[in-house]
Amino acid sequence: VAIELINTGSELLLGRVLNTHQQWICRQLADHGYEVTRQICVADEGRQIQAAVRESLSRADLVLTTGGLGPTSDDITRDLIAQLLGRALVEDPAILSTITGYFAQRRRPMPASTKVQAMVPVGARVLPNLHGTAPGLAMEVNPNPFRESGGRSWLILLPGPPRELRPMFTESVLPLLRNEFPLAQPFVCRTLRTTGMGESMVEEKIAGSLEFLRPVGLQIGYCARVGEVDVRLVGHGEKAEATVRQAEEIVRQLIGPLIFAIGDGTMESTIVQLLAERRQTLALAESCTGGFIAHRVTNVPGASAVLLCGLVTYSNDAKKNLLGVREETLAAHGAVSEEVAREMAEGARQRNKADFALAVTGIAGPDGGSESKPVGTVFIALASKSGTVMEKRFNAFDRETFKFVTAQQAFDLLRRALVTEG
Amino acid sequence: VAIELINTGSELLLGRVLNTHQQWICRQLADHGYEVTRQICVADEGRQIQAAVRESLSRADLVLTTGGLGPTSDDITRDLIAQLLGRALVEDPAILSTITGYFAQRRRPMPASTKVQAMVPVGARVLPNLHGTAPGLAMEVNPNPFRESGGRSWLILLPGPPRELRPMFTESVLPLLRNEFPLAQPFVCRTLRTTGMGESMVEEKIAGSLEFLRPVGLQIGYCARVGEVDVRLVGHGEKAEATVRQAEEIVRQLIGPLIFAIGDGTMESTIVQLLAERRQTLALAESCTGGFIAHRVTNVPGASAVLLCGLVTYSNDAKKNLLGVREETLAAHGAVSEEVAREMAEGARQRNKADFALAVTGIAGPDGGSESKPVGTVFIALASKSGTVMEKRFNAFDRETFKFVTAQQAFDLLRRALVTEG
Repeated sequence: VAIELINTGSELLLGRVLNTHQQWICRQLADHGYEVTRQICVADEGRQIQAAVRESLSRADLVLTTGGLGPTSDDITRDLIAQLLGRALVEDPAILSTITGYFAQRRRPMPASTKVQAMVPVGARVLPNLHGTAPGLAMEVNPNPFRESGGRSWLILLPGPPRELRPMFTESVLPLLRNEFPLAQPFVCRTLRTTGMGESMVEEKIAGSLEFLRPVGLQIGYCARVGEVDVRLVGHGEKAEATVRQAEEIVRQLIGPLIFAIGDGTMESTIVQLLAERRQTLALAESCTGGFIAHRVTNVPGASAVLLCGLVTYSNDAKKNLLGVREETLAAHGAVSEEVAREMAEGARQRNKADFALAVTGIAGPDGGSESKPVGTVFIALASKSGTVMEKRFNAFDRETFKFVTAQQAFDLLRRALVTEG
Repeated sequence: VAIELINTGSELLLGRVLNTHQQWICRQLADHGYEVTRQICVADEGRQIQAAVRESLSRADLVLTTGGLGPTSDDITRDLIAQLLGRALVEDPAILSTITGYFAQRRRPMPASTKVQAMVPVGARVLPNLHGTAPGLAMEVNPNPFRESGGRSWLILLPGPPRELRPMFTESVLPLLRNEFPLAQPFVCRTLRTTGMGESMVEEKIAGSLEFLRPVGLQIGYCARVGEVDVRLVGHGEKAEATVRQAEEIVRQLIGPLIFAIGDGTMESTIVQLLAERRQTLALAESCTGGFIAHRVTNVPGASAVLLCGLVTYSNDAKKNLLGVREETLAAHGAVSEEVAREMAEGARQRNKADFALAVTGIAGPDGGSESKPVGTVFIALASKSGTVMEKRFNAFDRETFKFVTAQQAFDLLRRALVTEG
């Protein structure tokens, strides 16, 4: 099934907003075994929208559009598509009464322009909107006049606001898709998320050993972001499940300790889960990461069960007063040193009665580097009942990447300790 | 100038990553007077990439691609485009030596596959990569065989990682664009970033008073994101500079106190700048935002001059021990209360000898709400030498949006205090 996604909206091409629809819709389809073959963004401009829809219909079995169904003057998708397909627009009394009810319930006057949302191209199926006034529209284009091979395609128009689009997609689009385009064969997808090794090294470690599974339908994908590499194992066909399982076992044998999460899991959710399972607690002492480690931990629902506190000790005074780092240590070794990282971690652990404490001190840059400690130098310490372990790293990146990579390394130090201690 | 952007990467169409390139590149181009007419995503698949590039070259003066220049087997953009244009790939010794140096400096072994990044299509201009190993490639396609009208187009290949792409875009692509496609007439764009009022209210306040500047070429755009509304003032033609300056003055008269930054400025950079100018210091006490406020402050280079410390006091014990919040206050009012927020802020200010202290306590959700304090309830306190001011807010969003909006409100409370005290 060839699927194309067209996102309309001038604000997208002006770069004022991020296209979150793309990731969300693509992820939904991929998780259900469907593949988006192309995604296109065009401005709210008649000729552009019609050209994009015509071209997508010439290639795809299913074309999805987002945006442009609202009541304002730049909401033109419905009109343009009806025109392109040569279908008249007819007022749908059921939609009109839903819209009228929507405003009545909220005791707001209904602007006259809202009525345009009750116009439906002849033959279109109406997809209910549970969180707004513009319904979605699904049309079977049969025969498809834009495709050389003829046949039929589906064209589905979805509203722009995420809280309207997402439930409509789940409740109306996926069932329609499963019904009109059932999967030809079983599909299994598993993503192993790794850290601590670059993309090409990961590939070098595992690709050869997985080669023999390619003929039975294994596909391997790598996705590198800074500080992590996803290995995506996809199986098609009758043996998909077994193939992916076998591939996963091989990857685990080769680079098991690097895998920090599966699928949608994150490093921080793994940390919170491992600590929660063990009923253990964490304290954080951050200098150069400036609260980012605490931020990531507290993004996980339930973090309050394991995180006692986070101390962002930017100044030397804060390191002394809040963590008990000694004046002599600071004077002898400087704030960015193995010795200070150790005292930060041990101070955070003891003062907060935590099972584990992670501490980081380093030079995020752009200023503050020296010859012996250049920008990017960072010391990470993990204190636990087994003592304190240290890592020195060199993360020469821009400031935000520095924070992410340093946090990732600190989390991984803790993760490995938790997994090893069992 | 018709510009098309092609983002390659199966991870985009699988929904594994968000397409931040699109927003960033479109924003850069729009701010410099150029317009992206279409954006396309295709998978790392030979036929798809070649078809997309061929089609974009048939329409556009400039085609930008991102991704697929790395060393792994799914990095195929360079090869495919050389093949499409019928150009041989030649190893570039200068690039190879840069790559070798990159690995030597980091004391890491260089995987053999990395060498492929030194291959350059005949006639291509090499765009240096300051933060990675894959250089960008710029090719003049002249004559352009895919365009009916003939003429020339430029095709520019950029690497996928943002920290590599962004400096390359600024330092190599923009100058090339200005040189090869100079703007027909002066273009001035100024974005005023506001917080504290919804999009339609902002428009209602200013649109009427700016109407008289439309005939001389003023365009006004509004873009609302959660917690902020951008007002984009664009001028075209000879008087662009004066028109936009005049428009800005009018907007400042009408809604000046809402404007927290200009252009690419952020709330946090404004805060750090205002404090640094006044040689004043800040301490933070965060509960529900979990370090996110400290994280945003420390994203600003130079934050160490103004931020003394950040305390993420998730547990009640941490609130008592680190901030001196009284047991009785916690017992009488609960951790999420105006009284606790006040004691957090005052404790953080006094204990750290800071000029200002911001404190937040609230219920981020998904759990922890009650009838009197539903999920989304938050108390913000600002302590200074003039006393303590409080705000109660209701931010009923998902967890990450809750953190962002709450941080934005806390920053704005401080910003208004700083601006008022002068």
